[in-house]
Amino acid sequence: MAFDPSTPLQLSNGENLTRLSIAFESYGALNAEKSNAVLVCHALSGDQFVASPSPITGRPAWWPRIVGPGRAIDTNRFYVVCANVLGGSMGSTGPASLGLDGQPYGLRFPPIVVSDIVRAQAMLIEALGIETLFLVVGAGFGAMQALQWASAYPKRTFACATIAAAAQQTAQAMALSELGRQAIMADPDWRGGGYLAHGVRPARGLAIARAAAQIGNLSERDLLGAFEAAAARERFVLDADLDTPSSRQQGGGFVSRFDANSYLYLSRAMDRFDLGADFGGNLANAFQGGATRHAVFAFSSDWRYPPEAVRALAQGLIAAGAEASYVEIDTPKGHDAYLGEEPAFEAALTGFIDAAAMARRLSLQAGGH
Amino acid sequence: MAFDPSTPLQLSNGENLTRLSIAFESYGALNAEKSNAVLVCHALSGDQFVASPSPITGRPAWWPRIVGPGRAIDTNRFYVVCANVLGGSMGSTGPASLGLDGQPYGLRFPPIVVSDIVRAQAMLIEALGIETLFLVVGAGFGAMQALQWASAYPKRTFACATIAAAAQQTAQAMALSELGRQAIMADPDWRGGGYLAHGVRPARGLAIARAAAQIGNLSERDLLGAFEAAAARERFVLDADLDTPSSRQQGGGFVSRFDANSYLYLSRAMDRFDLGADFGGNLANAFQGGATRHAVFAFSSDWRYPPEAVRALAQGLIAAGAEASYVEIDTPKGHDAYLGEEPAFEAALTGFIDAAAMARRLSLQAGGH
Repeated sequence: MAFDPSTPLQLSNGENLTRLSIAFESYGALNAEKSNAVLVCHALSGDQFVASPSPITGRPAWWPRIVGPGRAIDTNRFYVVCANVLGGSMGSTGPASLGLDGQPYGLRFPPIVVSDIVRAQAMLIEALGIETLFLVVGAGFGAMQALQWASAYPKRTFACATIAAAAQQTAQAMALSELGRQAIMADPDWRGGGYLAHGVRPARGLAIARAAAQIGNLSERDLLGAFEAAAARERFVLDADLDTPSSRQQGGGFVSRFDANSYLYLSRAMDRFDLGADFGGNLANAFQGGATRHAVFAFSSDWRYPPEAVRALAQGLIAAGAEASYVEIDTPKGHDAYLGEEPAFEAALTGFIDAAAMARRLSLQAGGH
Repeated sequence: MAFDPSTPLQLSNGENLTRLSIAFESYGALNAEKSNAVLVCHALSGDQFVASPSPITGRPAWWPRIVGPGRAIDTNRFYVVCANVLGGSMGSTGPASLGLDGQPYGLRFPPIVVSDIVRAQAMLIEALGIETLFLVVGAGFGAMQALQWASAYPKRTFACATIAAAAQQTAQAMALSELGRQAIMADPDWRGGGYLAHGVRPARGLAIARAAAQIGNLSERDLLGAFEAAAARERFVLDADLDTPSSRQQGGGFVSRFDANSYLYLSRAMDRFDLGADFGGNLANAFQGGATRHAVFAFSSDWRYPPEAVRALAQGLIAAGAEASYVEIDTPKGHDAYLGEEPAFEAALTGFIDAAAMARRLSLQAGGH
């Protein structure tokens, strides 16, 4: 489905984006009270097909363990919405979309930040008739969007679950991102960002960018496994999509399905996310006065967002007076652990959602919104 | 100076390398007993010009704080040798050297490992008339060579100082290396490794490889500083040689001075170094029975070889019954801290060298070698 608002999107840099389109999927049904809406925010390499196969790429749903009938985010109970991010390349307006002159934007696409992505989501949620989201949830880049929801729209965000993310990027994660962008721009097929007009794509650069991102996504154990597998095959070079179960699930065909300029814009938005800095260097100020209930999940072997960094986020929330639970899951699966079988994670997420749903019912019975 | 042995170098893969040349520099004078020789092993991006400017690149000496008159490695007391590694591109035989057919080796250069590099150094040291090195010292890749000396030639290595290195690469460091190799090979100017014959160089790929390596070399603080500086200049892309004092010192002109194929070979040798694996998975076996005195230095903010990894090396040495001191220096300067002003490091290295020199004198007086 696509949402094409009639009003332009105001961007943080002062520009207005006209001809906006946001592609989204929904699962389950909105109840009469409109109190059961869940927004799932996808990660950098993700898309809106959280619980159903993508007709665009043919890939299966990316989070079927968590979103579906009887799952933690139970589509029998909740109305689940997932939208392709602004700047993405799965149907929402982004650098590969056509500008007013009928040519792809390319680098003429305005620079965007996480708050722009969330502002577009808020327009969609409003258009769907939803005043308050029961839950906003995401992992990695998706978690940054969820945090931005709780910060910018506290009254519209009843509960917020952030998985494997912090309130800002680590320097090493930023550096890997930057390296990926360099690799894309160094690819002669990038053509200064105008590759679409030339019928080429900077596939080699994008493959390297993907490999750089995977360094952060995989745990020490899984990276070593990938290297041992490559060494056993006596190969001088690894696949760009490192050959691990997690990357096969996520990355298969990444280079063919992902727009390289989109990668430049979104990874930059991710690098620039820094909720604390936006609020005078004090993360607690970003959530002051909000009544959103938070769950913050960390994975012990997450190299991209190590538990220390995630814990700082939870502490910022608590310092803001928020009801915030911090859950650290012991797992060797690294940043991408949320995609696989992780019973303790699923149980904790289910518990948080059930408790929040009960609180929401009590609040509604008491006349709250 | 160049050492051109008349016998071929036997490589670990079974091949013999004829027409070997090893470029080296020396400082100070060998004493009559030939007991004051120090071998400095350089890091991946280094060269033999440890204490004097390079006439090839015009760059200043890379370790003047440590090697020189009155320094920790005092050239008034010691005869210091530093050789360009086998596979390098500063005069020693490597992929850019001409093969028997008069064409640059390129990818026809045999794959080499750290023990091959050290075997070539051992030929040089023998040719210089030195039976036993008083000290072998190095940082990073150089420290791996020093460890290989202590393991392969324990009787020829009286003391060994390893700085900011472990007995094997971490997975993340390997992945950054591999990423750099991918970037070089993805550069169309690499020409399948045959760029020299075409009069081109894969400068963009090599710049990305250098940037990938710098992610490991810089501390969180210095990386963040580099990103803030770039953001302040409103730039979309960073220099490949990240703009920090440490990278200016090390990396200025890296892309123009370093042979890209050499980078492929040496970084691979570094990735494959795993002393424990070479000895049945037990690091202690690599040093069993040796009498070398060891000092193992770690830097608290070293991301490439974090103190945990360095400590495991020290523990392996101790388990082998070696006399081994572990020194952890608290510094925000990351892996490259050894290059800058680090008084506690200099004091500890000086102390280790002075104590070892005294032990060496006592050993010689007692009739030892």
